[in-house]
Amino acid sequence: MSDSTIGICLLGCGTVGGGVVKVLREQHDLLLRRTGIDFQLRHVVVKSKDEYPANAAELPMSTEATPAIDDPASQIIVELIGGTGVAGQFVERALKLGRPVVTANKALLAVRGPELFALARQNNTCIAFEASAGGGIPIIDALMRGLVANRVDALLGIVNGTCNFILTKMTQNGWGYDQALKEAQRLGFAEANPAMDVSGRDAAQKLAILAGLAFNCRVREEDIHLEGIDKLDATDLTFACQFGYVIKLLAIAERRENDRISLRVHPTLVHKDDLLADVSGSFNAISFYGHALGHALFYGRGAGQMPTASAVVSDIIGVAIGTTPLQFKHLNVFPDKVDPVKVLPFDELQSRYYIRLTAKDQPGVLAQVTAALGRHWISLSAIHQPESDANGSVPVVITTHLANEGAMQSALKEIDSLPTISAPTVCIRIIDQPKEFGNK
Amino acid sequence: MSDSTIGICLLGCGTVGGGVVKVLREQHDLLLRRTGIDFQLRHVVVKSKDEYPANAAELPMSTEATPAIDDPASQIIVELIGGTGVAGQFVERALKLGRPVVTANKALLAVRGPELFALARQNNTCIAFEASAGGGIPIIDALMRGLVANRVDALLGIVNGTCNFILTKMTQNGWGYDQALKEAQRLGFAEANPAMDVSGRDAAQKLAILAGLAFNCRVREEDIHLEGIDKLDATDLTFACQFGYVIKLLAIAERRENDRISLRVHPTLVHKDDLLADVSGSFNAISFYGHALGHALFYGRGAGQMPTASAVVSDIIGVAIGTTPLQFKHLNVFPDKVDPVKVLPFDELQSRYYIRLTAKDQPGVLAQVTAALGRHWISLSAIHQPESDANGSVPVVITTHLANEGAMQSALKEIDSLPTISAPTVCIRIIDQPKEFGNK
Repeated sequence: MSDSTIGICLLGCGTVGGGVVKVLREQHDLLLRRTGIDFQLRHVVVKSKDEYPANAAELPMSTEATPAIDDPASQIIVELIGGTGVAGQFVERALKLGRPVVTANKALLAVRGPELFALARQNNTCIAFEASAGGGIPIIDALMRGLVANRVDALLGIVNGTCNFILTKMTQNGWGYDQALKEAQRLGFAEANPAMDVSGRDAAQKLAILAGLAFNCRVREEDIHLEGIDKLDATDLTFACQFGYVIKLLAIAERRENDRISLRVHPTLVHKDDLLADVSGSFNAISFYGHALGHALFYGRGAGQMPTASAVVSDIIGVAIGTTPLQFKHLNVFPDKVDPVKVLPFDELQSRYYIRLTAKDQPGVLAQVTAALGRHWISLSAIHQPESDANGSVPVVITTHLANEGAMQSALKEIDSLPTISAPTVCIRIIDQPKEFGNK
Repeated sequence: MSDSTIGICLLGCGTVGGGVVKVLREQHDLLLRRTGIDFQLRHVVVKSKDEYPANAAELPMSTEATPAIDDPASQIIVELIGGTGVAGQFVERALKLGRPVVTANKALLAVRGPELFALARQNNTCIAFEASAGGGIPIIDALMRGLVANRVDALLGIVNGTCNFILTKMTQNGWGYDQALKEAQRLGFAEANPAMDVSGRDAAQKLAILAGLAFNCRVREEDIHLEGIDKLDATDLTFACQFGYVIKLLAIAERRENDRISLRVHPTLVHKDDLLADVSGSFNAISFYGHALGHALFYGRGAGQMPTASAVVSDIIGVAIGTTPLQFKHLNVFPDKVDPVKVLPFDELQSRYYIRLTAKDQPGVLAQVTAALGRHWISLSAIHQPESDANGSVPVVITTHLANEGAMQSALKEIDSLPTISAPTVCIRIIDQPKEFGNK
């Protein structure tokens, strides 16, 4: 590409689309000066006239995607509709015409990624997707460019701003989950139906993309062990703080023995000295551990109109000057070019654990619990017994040394069947920074 | 480029060169799998046989740069000699032959950047320089790629690991500068002659590169106001902590009125809630503020064998697959394509200040000092008067609201001429996170 004028066809003009329009119009001269390219919006397509933005009169609006995509003046197709329905059909149509596609649609990539990447390749074009994970943080580009010389050891990310906002409020204000969720909804950080976010699915879809690029394998959402934040009790966030930890929803991909990759999204105790513990509110961050670089961290806004537009427009520029197509052609890191991931089965995970028991206030409970853990070769690093509550039941918090996940699950079953245990035991994993790079 | 085999000519094989050899050899198959390119070391050139590495027998060693550069099999020239002498001659020779150059040499770019970039362009080739600032952190690539859609508002960086290590030791252990420097030297974080680092010059050369790319202007080292860390007193690091700050050597480039850029390297009080305050030891970090993305931070190892090699090899790959040459050709952000920076004169800077007075223990001192500040329209945010020391002189610490640098310097002259002031007043700037993006 890199004609002096590049025509853009924008499919979808909601929050992010509006941001892309804003950047392309308001920073038109800056982008022209930087790139030598005169970016022109040729089509802005929405579902119906009801969705026309306030400044529709100034824009080449329409409600028909097909002629917009087919127009030879549409040199780059930007898909910001979301979902796996018409978005997928439009992307497919664009690729079949050999038009490069820029998208922020992680759900579409999760479901149809390999097929669409292959289609792009067959038609000698490309897909750019920086905005699909990490919002405005240029982590996808970093994995393909600045970090590409590294054998990757681990990626640990806070990649869902909704969850991080809720957990931050719970930690800082001592709120329960429901109150924090309501506040997130009130401020626009959570949707009316927050299931995709709070279940961890959104984070898992992003992890599938990031882990695939980092470890050069094909990762499906189903490969990722998933636990959300919606079952978390404020008590555990408070106790975690007392022990020097913060609870974060982490998306984790770690290389383990025999190049098997541990893939998981779950609430995690992060030590206060870890930079990830300082990532508050709706911000995202990805910790990267590479064999040459060691530890690096990328921090920024993982969602929102303008941060996401920043990523989308950077992709538009990369496609326009030709760097993105070259990367797409030469790097063998995309889901259509790699083998399926070798997943470390979840019950083979080695982790440290935080467990909170609710025990009847009777002698001998601790002996029974520690015996159950011992039978499964789980050794303890600390036991804390905070004040008894009004019901005559006592919280007991135990942290463990490295233990096997399968063994822990078996031990928990035994513990919860003890007559002295009066409520299901809470179990949250503790993450330690990968070795050799632990010092901040 | 992007032949299936790419020949590398490595000039210099010290610490970083050794790391590049290590990555290219040990990760040869990984890089081949990722890029489809078989990277082959064709020449490894050092000054004399005394500098041959331990594994010299396995490498294509020589002591003659010219034939190595001229060899048609040398498709990418990697300059890791450093300095502005022969390194410059070799880079020039390579560029004149149309050979792309990968370099980590910030000093060379600081002194001869515009000329060498123009020479590369005349010969239809390019210079890649990711390792010249931020070590292994892919910040240069981010400025040209993932962040390129942003009008940049500010860059604030901890870009010298030596200084950050020394300041961290002073802060955490209460050490004086000399003791911390000795420890840094003992551990290899500081050179025998640490002047380039502790004076801030190294940071200024890196800032010149980063600010030029961010603000699309030509920045010379002389454009940057420079204060090092070698005059810092442990007292001030201790007091700063008491007031909720940490002292860091920051390299700062901020857009001010009329698109003038404030460019400076100096010790700075950073609030403990700022992520930069958590960047400890030899790590580096760059805070970026863009109009669309808002705040982002890039953290990682800013020096060292393998982190720097990570950046150099990523450049080699970018050159080999062709993305770096395309960026070099199309982006108008390089020092040969942009106008000189419009610098905000240093005395027009608006900043908050920390000042520490050493006053005789007499009544009326504070009245005289505050009167002097008031005459220059400097208003105070707090006054602290710690315990008097044994000599009958009293430290008084004052923090100010936003004030004008020129006014502050005039006020300091007046204050230091007061008969009740018994030692020169210490003045350190306080940085506040740029507005709208202040929340972590």
